[in-house]
Amino acid sequence: MNPAIVLSPIGSVRSPFTDTAQIPKGPGARHDAEGVLEVLPDLEPGLADIEGFSHLFVLWIFDRAQGFDLLSRPPTDDRPHGVFATRSPRRPNPIGLTVVELLGRDGRRLRVRGVDMLDGTPIVDIKPYLSGVPAERIRRGWLAEAEARASTRDPGRGDPGGGVGQR
Amino acid sequence: MNPAIVLSPIGSVRSPFTDTAQIPKGPGARHDAEGVLEVLPDLEPGLADIEGFSHLFVLWIFDRAQGFDLLSRPPTDDRPHGVFATRSPRRPNPIGLTVVELLGRDGRRLRVRGVDMLDGTPIVDIKPYLSGVPAERIRRGWLAEAEARASTRDPGRGDPGGGVGQR
Repeated sequence: MNPAIVLSPIGSVRSPFTDTAQIPKGPGARHDAEGVLEVLPDLEPGLADIEGFSHLFVLWIFDRAQGFDLLSRPPTDDRPHGVFATRSPRRPNPIGLTVVELLGRDGRRLRVRGVDMLDGTPIVDIKPYLSGVPAERIRRGWLAEAEARASTRDPGRGDPGGGVGQR
Repeated sequence: MNPAIVLSPIGSVRSPFTDTAQIPKGPGARHDAEGVLEVLPDLEPGLADIEGFSHLFVLWIFDRAQGFDLLSRPPTDDRPHGVFATRSPRRPNPIGLTVVELLGRDGRRLRVRGVDMLDGTPIVDIKPYLSGVPAERIRRGWLAEAEARASTRDPGRGDPGGGVGQR
């Protein structure tokens, strides 16, 4: 097996969230919070032409999570699931992934909509979002089942459409 | 700024590609190659319930790329663009991201469609794909412009729809 891989942050997130409890989660969660992706000054040339893309993938580090669980109970369900079938922060490699909408660029700062990271979160990569899987082809496994159960208990809470956030 | 982050592979990719020249790239590239995501034996419990999802995000390492360029000319264009506006393997943190379709699971092996990684590529995370940005809301910046120029030069080659591959 390959040796360890060492990453360095390319920047950090400015977000309205300072505590994980503030971040919308679960069925019907809306991810429309605005924030800023602040890239290190030396790396600003790497943002050239990014303004033309409407959406970006942001790869970041769950820097306030420690350790991992192979099985865990997400906030969206009362049953445990494998970590690779969830967005849990407690993962073998604590990498987060979020799709954001790019609102504008001011030099090395990208104003975006859809942040679900804590303020100060380290960013390790930014990539253009080029195409999405059409909604009618996506199956959402245990999450769809948990949402169906939740909306039976609490009608009006389910939102099978989901947001663009990909935490 | 935060300290370095150390990742360990959670498994590796079995792919038909042994050389980057074999991987479809550029406008009209189809990403329908089948492969296997092979997770380490110790981590197999983390795959519980993953069968219910139709698509997955795979995060992996460009382990055969060395160094990075802040500006580079992608295979899809004759003009240079910032690395964060491209899928170049020569990135500050050499992380790749691919959306694959999950065809089936055999224990710790996930059979998938849409691999664009080399055989043996280290995987660092797998996440469920929950929702996509609708096609009509996606703007694809320089890539759409390059495709338009390419299809003027070589009609029939352009494919604005793209695949689900997110290399």
